[in-house]
Amino acid sequence: MIPQTTLEKLRSVVGKENVLDSPEDKIAYSYDGTPLLQQLPDAAIIPRSVDHISQILRLANEEGFAVVPRGSGSGLSGGSIPVDNSVVLLMNHWNRILEIDQKNLTVWVEPGVITANLHSTVEALGLLYPPDPGSAAICSIGGNVAENAGGLRGLKYGVTKNYVLGLEVVLPNGDVVVTGGKSMKDVAGYSLKDFLIGSEGTLGIITRVLLRLIPKPQASRTMLAYFDKMSDAAETVSDIIAAKITPAALEFLDNTTIRCVEEYAKLGLPTHVESLLLIEVDGRKAEVEEDGEKVVGLCKKHHSLDVRVAATEQEAIQLRTARKAAFSALARVRPTTILEDATVPRSEVASMLERIKSISSKYNLTFGNFGHAGDGNLHPTCLTDERDKDEIDRAMRAIEEIFLEAVRFGGTITGEHGVGLAKRKFLEQTMSEPALEMMRKIKDALDPNRVLNPGKIFKLRPRCEGPMPTNREQIKKFLEMGAYT
Amino acid sequence: MIPQTTLEKLRSVVGKENVLDSPEDKIAYSYDGTPLLQQLPDAAIIPRSVDHISQILRLANEEGFAVVPRGSGSGLSGGSIPVDNSVVLLMNHWNRILEIDQKNLTVWVEPGVITANLHSTVEALGLLYPPDPGSAAICSIGGNVAENAGGLRGLKYGVTKNYVLGLEVVLPNGDVVVTGGKSMKDVAGYSLKDFLIGSEGTLGIITRVLLRLIPKPQASRTMLAYFDKMSDAAETVSDIIAAKITPAALEFLDNTTIRCVEEYAKLGLPTHVESLLLIEVDGRKAEVEEDGEKVVGLCKKHHSLDVRVAATEQEAIQLRTARKAAFSALARVRPTTILEDATVPRSEVASMLERIKSISSKYNLTFGNFGHAGDGNLHPTCLTDERDKDEIDRAMRAIEEIFLEAVRFGGTITGEHGVGLAKRKFLEQTMSEPALEMMRKIKDALDPNRVLNPGKIFKLRPRCEGPMPTNREQIKKFLEMGAYT
Repeated sequence: MIPQTTLEKLRSVVGKENVLDSPEDKIAYSYDGTPLLQQLPDAAIIPRSVDHISQILRLANEEGFAVVPRGSGSGLSGGSIPVDNSVVLLMNHWNRILEIDQKNLTVWVEPGVITANLHSTVEALGLLYPPDPGSAAICSIGGNVAENAGGLRGLKYGVTKNYVLGLEVVLPNGDVVVTGGKSMKDVAGYSLKDFLIGSEGTLGIITRVLLRLIPKPQASRTMLAYFDKMSDAAETVSDIIAAKITPAALEFLDNTTIRCVEEYAKLGLPTHVESLLLIEVDGRKAEVEEDGEKVVGLCKKHHSLDVRVAATEQEAIQLRTARKAAFSALARVRPTTILEDATVPRSEVASMLERIKSISSKYNLTFGNFGHAGDGNLHPTCLTDERDKDEIDRAMRAIEEIFLEAVRFGGTITGEHGVGLAKRKFLEQTMSEPALEMMRKIKDALDPNRVLNPGKIFKLRPRCEGPMPTNREQIKKFLEMGAYT
Repeated sequence: MIPQTTLEKLRSVVGKENVLDSPEDKIAYSYDGTPLLQQLPDAAIIPRSVDHISQILRLANEEGFAVVPRGSGSGLSGGSIPVDNSVVLLMNHWNRILEIDQKNLTVWVEPGVITANLHSTVEALGLLYPPDPGSAAICSIGGNVAENAGGLRGLKYGVTKNYVLGLEVVLPNGDVVVTGGKSMKDVAGYSLKDFLIGSEGTLGIITRVLLRLIPKPQASRTMLAYFDKMSDAAETVSDIIAAKITPAALEFLDNTTIRCVEEYAKLGLPTHVESLLLIEVDGRKAEVEEDGEKVVGLCKKHHSLDVRVAATEQEAIQLRTARKAAFSALARVRPTTILEDATVPRSEVASMLERIKSISSKYNLTFGNFGHAGDGNLHPTCLTDERDKDEIDRAMRAIEEIFLEAVRFGGTITGEHGVGLAKRKFLEQTMSEPALEMMRKIKDALDPNRVLNPGKIFKLRPRCEGPMPTNREQIKKFLEMGAYT
């Protein structure tokens, strides 16, 4: 528990009204989008300036409490779940688009800007911010940067990291660093922004983000293709890539997911098919037409039962809904939905799906599968009930097997959700000790007192209590206490 | 000086024939592509396996010498210049392309592979490795990764970082880490590869690189446009971007550079024009035709004196030569060529060139200017003579002013060459203390004994001699020695 005297100091930094510590407030910030994880913070704090954040972090170092940053709280790996002795730092109020520079195709935003709001704002100017996480309607740019969010356009356009040109960040010691800028090329020193992107709130609090935009493609074509066999869908994906077409989206749904989506959204999807591909090509008009026709041809070549091509933007939105509704549709079926993001090299997607199927049978579980076929980023989604301890145990064992399998296929335990608390155990299982040790060293070097989101991504090694020694006297005292084994 | 006993130990690790310490050898590895910098190493070592490198680094930690990695030695910031008490680690022998995976569009290479060899190998398969540094014919992939090399295709295709999927690296303590993989999305833990890319050989020795390839564009069109006024060329660049065209190359040469190139390569360039733009658009045939015509139109709109459009690939190569020969052509004029890479946001290119012109006059120097107009990455090139101490002094002051000016324009002191030794002073001048401190902390955490390319990028803070304490006894000894002030 953070003592009241410390909370008083926090109140004097940000103002009384910006320290929320009623039981209701604590409950509201005790969980995020991740199932099964919950812990009460000691308070939630709304900082109103960069200087507030610096002061809060300095206080955390002095008084020994932890700070857990939080944007929209839509994360799926527990990155914003409070830890022992922590305050949650609410960044969702920081939601202004600060500057759109049409000459340099850049935009400065605050971290709380909702991703979909940025999309629509820049698209109105004929520009595109490509990263499009499934949760775009509710997630925030700060969270996207902290997790290096991926999404539907990863195959062609890359992920969040590819669009971050600069960051303003408050470091764990309270120092403020601006790194990067509007130059498209910049190799002056270590790329500090790349250290921070994907660091899941453990190395710095993001206070401003400079993003790169691109011209909006002239045209796009959206298609839905149905297949009786998953292997046909997988071969279609391979052939599209082999034909040197790079779709903006190349997504799949399995039968379980299709049935749930149809029940939920009534899109007229055939519920008997084994698999569905959502394919979107974009670019110049002529290119889109050429690619669109080729894609239809390849779908047919691989025994597609039907290919629906959107004739209007309205229809395209409807087809996209089949994919975008997947998570919500699956989440209605059982009380607890565990959405994972095991990722494999594209060539292994079909084999990996086979493995997931047999793991699911082995543990007698229901999995819906959907995801980004084009970049190998799958979303095996376990439909379960956290009140059923036995089923949850089986789900946990199944998920562990799925992760180990993904790594065996040359893939990773997380393609876009991050490690947080939920996947920490699997990271430690699958990553080599030297790589883990490198991460620990970086964390310890930048956050010696472990004030920033401690215990996320990897467990911190236990050590003597109190702040790290920085001078002779402290070190002497530590030696007397038996430190440095 | 590294004692003979240590050199003996190195010989027993890699074999006698792989430790080069004759005076001739030492001289051969005492310099790289950077003017004005030279220092003799104590030896050059050829490692023949990853394990050799681990053993060398462990020995370096134990015996207290430094290791300076070197690829082709074409660097322009002194990154591979030996330091006191150092051996140079020669990686240019590691030059095999290990695996081309056409299903996943990836390639594993050893670090010594020459960039142009990779280009031609994958292009023969209809694929493209986009990064194209000016030195592609001689530089190596390992050096490209260490410096995060840019090049001519940066505007449309990004830089080296955007194509590195994975790395095998020997860390300063001799541990081997493999980070990343063939999954296009991977957010499992800190992105260690992004910590290493651009770290200029100070955090790890790269032993294998996994790169992403893309389908080779169907068509391209190469154009040369001449302008009487630099401002007209600059406005053409702005208008091309505003027209939502993203050329694969958008390069400029100033009059000094044009004259030198013409004298050197006899391409029939008009030597009276103020500026020349090399513009290359690529993509689908229809797109290329459409964009090519638009570009010609925009050049004419801004009073281009002539636009040459390559009719054949042969002619395209000739037009590209105008740009690619720039450095070599300028280097013939005076004994010493200082090629810099001050970079500004694209919108500031014209103003920055104006400033360079007036700085050049102020110090009575000759500068040739060329570079990547599309991404703001300029190459002000001072033609001078290192034997003329006064002129070199003026050159140094001029270059310092140019860097400060670039930063004032929101740019950076280095867009693609790295900091190394040559720009360390300017990094320390232009970067905030908290950002520098963050870099120092990371370096100290990962390389506490400072064995790997120490003193590159930033000066290391002086501290007690000898290795960092890691246990109780050492710490006690350090306290007695008066450490930890």
